[in-house]
Formats: sequence, C-alpha cells, structure tokens
Amino acid sequence: MPNKKDDVYGDHISEKFNDELTELKTQFLNMGGLVESQVEHAIQALVDNDGQLAEQTRLNDKIVDKMERDLDEEAILVIARRQPTARDLRLVISVIKMVADLERMGDEAKKIAKMAIKLSEEGQAPRGYIEIRHIGNHVMSMIHDALDAFARLDSEQALRIMKEDKQVDEEYQAAARALLTFMMEDTRNISRCMMVMWVLRALERIGDHACNIAEHVIFMAKGEDVRHSPMEETEKVVGR
Amino acid sequence: MPNKKDDVYGDHISEKFNDELTELKTQFLNMGGLVESQVEHAIQALVDNDGQLAEQTRLNDKIVDKMERDLDEEAILVIARRQPTARDLRLVISVIKMVADLERMGDEAKKIAKMAIKLSEEGQAPRGYIEIRHIGNHVMSMIHDALDAFARLDSEQALRIMKEDKQVDEEYQAAARALLTFMMEDTRNISRCMMVMWVLRALERIGDHACNIAEHVIFMAKGEDVRHSPMEETEKVVGR
Repeated sequence: MPNKKDDVYGDHISEKFNDELTELKTQFLNMGGLVESQVEHAIQALVDNDGQLAEQTRLNDKIVDKMERDLDEEAILVIARRQPTARDLRLVISVIKMVADLERMGDEAKKIAKMAIKLSEEGQAPRGYIEIRHIGNHVMSMIHDALDAFARLDSEQALRIMKEDKQVDEEYQAAARALLTFMMEDTRNISRCMMVMWVLRALERIGDHACNIAEHVIFMAKGEDVRHSPMEETEKVVGR
Repeated sequence: MPNKKDDVYGDHISEKFNDELTELKTQFLNMGGLVESQVEHAIQALVDNDGQLAEQTRLNDKIVDKMERDLDEEAILVIARRQPTARDLRLVISVIKMVADLERMGDEAKKIAKMAIKLSEEGQAPRGYIEIRHIGNHVMSMIHDALDAFARLDSEQALRIMKEDKQVDEEYQAAARALLTFMMEDTRNISRCMMVMWVLRALERIGDHACNIAEHVIFMAKGEDVRHSPMEETEKVVGR
C-alpha cells in the first residue's frame, strides 16, 4: 500500500499507474525548477547588465526544449503501457499540456535574455528596471507556487495563483502606461523604453502560463475544466 | 477497404481508429476554419474601424474556447476506446497540441478585436494599417495553408509554412522599426503607434502558432519531432 499522504492522485488510479504518474510528476517538477531559474537568471542578467549570464540563459533554453520532448515521450509511453481509463487519461493529458506551458515560459525567458544581451552590448541601462524587478518577482513567485500547487494538488493555492495573475496584469498595465508617458516626455527614451516594454510583456505572458498550470491543477484535483470560466465559478469548484 | 487516397494517416493504423481520427480531423478543421475567420474579422474590424464586427469577433472567441474543450474531450475518448499503440498515440497527442495552438490564435484575434473596439470608440485611425494589412494577409494565408497541410498531411507544404514564418518575423521587425521611427518623429503618435505595435505582435504570434501546427504535420507525416530543430535538419526530414 502506498503511503496515503503521498497518494496525491487519489484512489481511483491503479497503483502501478500511480507510480508512473509520480515519475512523470518528478520529471515535470525538474523541468519546472529549471524554467523557474531561467526566468530568474534572465531578469538578473538584464538588471545587472550581465551579458555572460544572459548568454548562458539563452543557451540553457535548449535543455528546457529537450526536457519537453522527453516528458511528452514519457507521457505517451505511460498511456501506451497502462491504457488508462478516460478519467485517468485526463490527468496525463493535463501534464502534457502543462509541459507546453513550461516550454513557453522558457521561451519568454530566452527572449528576455536576448534583450539583456543586446542591452549589455549597447552598454545601456534603460529606465523601468524597478518595474521589471517588481513584476519579475511577482511572476517568479507565481511559477514557484504553481509548481508547489501541482506537487501537492492544492486547488486552493491554484486559485490564489489565478487571482495573482489578475494583479500582474494590472501591474503590467500600470507599468506600460508609465513607460508610455516617459516616452512622450522625451523621444530619446523611446527605443530603450520599447525594450523594457517587451520585457514586461514577456513577464506578463509568463504569469499567464503559470495561471494555465494552476487551471490544470484544479482540473486534476477537482475533475472540472475551469479554463475560460469566470472566477466566481472557479471559486465554487475549488470550494467544493 | 478505405480508399487509399483518403487514408492519409497511413497503413499502420487500424481501420476503426482511422475512422475516429478522421472524425477528429474534421472537428479540428472546423475549429481551424473558425479561427481563420476570427483573425480575418479582427483585422477587418480594425482597418475598417468597425466596432460592431470587432464586438462580434470578441464574443465568438467563446465558441473557439468551447471547440477546444470538446476536441480535447473527444481525443481523450478516442484514446480510451481504441487504446492505441505508442506510435498511433503520438498522432492523437499531436492533435491535442495543435488544438491548443488554434485556441491561442483565437486569443490573439480576440486581443486585436479588443484593440479595434478601443480605437473605434476613440474614433482614431492610426498609422500602420498598411503593415497590419500586409502582415495580416500573410499570416492568414499561413493559417489556411497549415490547415490544408494538416488535411492532406503534406509535409512539404508544412515546410514552406515554416519558412514563411521566418519572413513574417522579418516583416514584423521591419514594421516595428518603422513605427519606432515614426514615434520618435512626433510624440503625439506614440500612443496610437503602440496600439499598432501590439496588433503586429499579435499577428506575429499567430504566425508562430501556424508554424507550430506545421511542425506537428511534419511529425504526423514523417514520424520525426522537428520542434526546435534547425531548418536544414527539418528539410532533410521532409525530403526523405
């Protein structure tokens, strides 16, 4: 008998299938950990004007891509071996979908790293780093919490992440408006401000992907697809 | 015996499984057709300053979202019913992944429609419509070709789409540079130019998703995962 506390995927799944899901889960969390540090390093490289760290981050995206391919393949083999029921299949398909979100977060981190390389070559230190740091910290904690919510199948934590995503969107809108004003004040700021704008946008997208993972966690924990549902309905699903 | 010409998924798949895949394919193409017209309408609404069409496009995104959920569910039921081999599973999983790409194209169309609503309320006609029209037409033909390549499992057409995506990226870069210059010339242009910039970015993302579909088509036709591969390697895979 598996330890009840570790058996986060519920009783409806056969023990062997559960073991294989646990293995997938570990692989997913490893990939998530790498993506989390990729985002951290990309922001750090930008803020510290560290071209070398930026280059390393850019290169490491290849590892993220490889992990995506490996996880997809492993998930397919689990399905082929275990031939799970429709209900259990949905869990594995959720993992496959969340892997795509992680890969895209990695892509956004790579974009930020490329921007950092460009800026370090030009020796520029644009305005807007405070916003990048602030929103960056926010989305980093969202990634961390999304992985944690997944590890513990904690739908309440997942719901909190979905609410935080709305905050990040507002923070992003406010920062974009401030940058726009700054650009209007002096046209010499425009080109550098645009860079910051793209970085903020990339961070906002990373938040969206963390939110997607949270939606899948709720689906895995509660069996309800809350994608595109209004927040009140999602709250009801989680409260059940 | 199914007609050989219609049996695009190859001999390795059982007839019943093939029938179900064909049904999935039809659903996918329907969803693709809707997304294609969503992108078209969003651009048209923006260029013609047509707030009503923009609003309709925004609302229709809910249908796209529903189609995604239905297709995911149908794909899961096909797997549960047929319990396909790992090889056949990869085809179904590809469909599930491509559905996510279609849904995200729909999201980008919705974003463009929202921008069109905002602009029509403000009565503004910003610069950059030529670029939006041009890049818009380009990505619309990419969506069309991607769906066609999928319908016929034509890996050569898929390869052409991947090459066109590189062109769209260049067109986007050029348009963004031109807008930046225009913003610098007169700060009164900035706010409106930013809108156009976001629309162009959304179009560029739509092109990326068409490219993702093309990659999956090559995978389905050739059995090789060309995601993140250099173009030369992809060419070799298609040429085989």
